[in-house]
Amino acid sequence: MATEIERKFLLDRTPEELIAAGSFQRRSQQTIEQTYLALDEQQEVRVRRLVDADTGEVEYTHTFKQGNGMSREEIEYSITESIYDQLFRASGAVPLTKTRTTGEWNGFTVELDRYEQLDLTVAEVEFGSLEDAQAFSPPDWFGEDISSKREYSNKKVWKELQNRA
Amino acid sequence: MATEIERKFLLDRTPEELIAAGSFQRRSQQTIEQTYLALDEQQEVRVRRLVDADTGEVEYTHTFKQGNGMSREEIEYSITESIYDQLFRASGAVPLTKTRTTGEWNGFTVELDRYEQLDLTVAEVEFGSLEDAQAFSPPDWFGEDISSKREYSNKKVWKELQNRA
Repeated sequence: MATEIERKFLLDRTPEELIAAGSFQRRSQQTIEQTYLALDEQQEVRVRRLVDADTGEVEYTHTFKQGNGMSREEIEYSITESIYDQLFRASGAVPLTKTRTTGEWNGFTVELDRYEQLDLTVAEVEFGSLEDAQAFSPPDWFGEDISSKREYSNKKVWKELQNRA
Repeated sequence: MATEIERKFLLDRTPEELIAAGSFQRRSQQTIEQTYLALDEQQEVRVRRLVDADTGEVEYTHTFKQGNGMSREEIEYSITESIYDQLFRASGAVPLTKTRTTGEWNGFTVELDRYEQLDLTVAEVEFGSLEDAQAFSPPDWFGEDISSKREYSNKKVWKELQNRA
């Protein structure tokens, strides 16, 4: 099982504003529709439909995650459109959508996620080790560090969206 | 992704009869409840609840399989009871149940699966390579080789069960 080590920060500007201001270099962009099939305190199972903004290419994935906070175990694989549709329909859920802009800042790969449904923008940075994650010094345009804040976890955000619907 | 290489045979006697006749040495037994969350020609996603007949220990698994026939790709991991329940409920399906008796025959690990709902018993043998699988010479109490017979695939058997319910 692969270990995912990442830190997450709140942003008070949109990706477009940050690119225009020269704070961030865009490399690619995807629109992501994601649905949680099941979640508890320790594990989550979700499916995603990802559309590349530049090529229009569509990909479907199934992901299992285990653990909480900065370091988590993850298994992800590609599924066919038909498997995605079956799982998505069975869930009966409202999909969460976000625009993910991937790019560079100071040698790091940074993902800016814009959630229109929730008026929320966050930045995620992935690291190779916990030491690298702890040593990371964020730029001044990164807002609050929410890596360990459960109220901004995708699970929490997901539940909020389901309650609204 | 792990590759699963196996051959499957029809049996005309139950595991109990084969053990009593001395054809098969029992090592362990589980009752397995399994539900397909999604399936198409190339892929399948299922969850299982496994109860060890000797210890009473319960385990829950999530499995993704890809491909058809003797050799298939498989990803399997343990899930919590709560994740299992959520996925199972969402599916709205009738679970397929079987009793799996694992044991030895001639140095090979053999699984005898008894499906009471379908009055069907099959034997499965797992191999380390396609060469080993092809070289395998079954005992006379193994019936027809159904490794490539789609009508006995778990998918097919599953659909039959759903149509009956």
